Amino acid sequence: YYTKVKMAEANVVLLDFWPSSYGMRVKIALAEKGITYECKQEDFQAKSSLLLETNPVHKMIPVLIHNGKPICESLNIVQYIDEAWNHKPSLLPSDLYKRSQARFWGDYIDKNVYNSVKRVWTGKGKEQEEHNKQFIECLKTLEDELANKPYFGGEDFGYVDVALVPFTSWFYTVETFGKLSIEEECPKLVAWAKRCMQKDSVATSLPHPHKIYAFALQYKQRHGLE
Amino acid sequence: YYTKVKMAEANVVLLDFWPSSYGMRVKIALAEKGITYECKQEDFQAKSSLLLETNPVHKMIPVLIHNGKPICESLNIVQYIDEAWNHKPSLLPSDLYKRSQARFWGDYIDKNVYNSVKRVWTGKGKEQEEHNKQFIECLKTLEDELANKPYFGGEDFGYVDVALVPFTSWFYTVETFGKLSIEEECPKLVAWAKRCMQKDSVATSLPHPHKIYAFALQYKQRHGLE
Repeated sequence: YYTKVKMAEANVVLLDFWPSSYGMRVKIALAEKGITYECKQEDFQAKSSLLLETNPVHKMIPVLIHNGKPICESLNIVQYIDEAWNHKPSLLPSDLYKRSQARFWGDYIDKNVYNSVKRVWTGKGKEQEEHNKQFIECLKTLEDELANKPYFGGEDFGYVDVALVPFTSWFYTVETFGKLSIEEECPKLVAWAKRCMQKDSVATSLPHPHKIYAFALQYKQRHGLE
Repeated sequence: YYTKVKMAEANVVLLDFWPSSYGMRVKIALAEKGITYECKQEDFQAKSSLLLETNPVHKMIPVLIHNGKPICESLNIVQYIDEAWNHKPSLLPSDLYKRSQARFWGDYIDKNVYNSVKRVWTGKGKEQEEHNKQFIECLKTLEDELANKPYFGGEDFGYVDVALVPFTSWFYTVETFGKLSIEEECPKLVAWAKRCMQKDSVATSLPHPHKIYAFALQYKQRHGLE
């Protein structure tokens, strides 16, 4: 059995791009399950043929390649990891109704957070205020759902935490460019983010906020968004 | 046991709006599982307090209320139904990898089909050609995935079929307003749609294409899109 697991682990490859919150989700899930894997960084100016072959529909990271078979879309990958390595505690709740609630919030995050974050740090001029407002509204919806629980699913770190926490590595960038304080607006959410960072799986998967900021600054310069 | 199932069934309520492809998905899944339920039609000019209470985040149909607990977002509901009523064959494959593929395509349909369909039938002027082109590209991606299989998952009607087939009730509307022939462009997909319509669960859940057309015509008149 031990040999079998080791072999399986040797066949896990992640196609990633380090500032991507979607890639971070997969890294957290793999770390939660204790899976070792090979991580390949993609270059967006010149996507690898491996990326184009394994994700021909979207041509986007992350892609998880398990025993030669590619899985795409980050929350789909997280669910696959959760089901494939079930020797460790499950990220999704076992209760059917709670599971449907977790998927609902994962989906909410997918549909709202990335765009809100990006609009704030790339915004300029009079649109900035509207972008900031929408971003805070989105966070407050999530904070209301978190309420006084330690994690979104309750006592244990799980699926919705994995879905959301990578975006907190962008908070410093968002606050600096957007000239806003997330802690003032959403103190419970910031406390939750700090709680998540106490976990090795999260701390080792998220880049330093200053590194993200340097990336965002470069991105804005390259795209004339200063 | 029989009494218990009957009681559970009595507590299934669907908040719906009949032309919605998302609502049709839920109806098909419930029919596949043989679940009787109460269907309440929502009025979009005056949303019911039940809808606002059960889906406070999106305020959108479909909502499935099972024993008083609301579940939102159509594919999330389909997954919940599949897991909650497991006395009938599963809509999602039991194989982990095939399940991840099914979720990938469900997600692709969610992200692409509704918008493509709507752009074609509401389009006008010189944008029409571009909308038609994008719509056909989207369908061809799906047709490539279907290839020569009877259903998306293989031999049996399943999750991806449930996700996609409701949109085929809009094809007549799309063809009429967009002045295009889906059968010419995607013959395999149209053959698949006809195959799905042989199933009672699908045939009883999809409105007649002419009824959808009359709805779309009214919608365009009301929104000045003629």
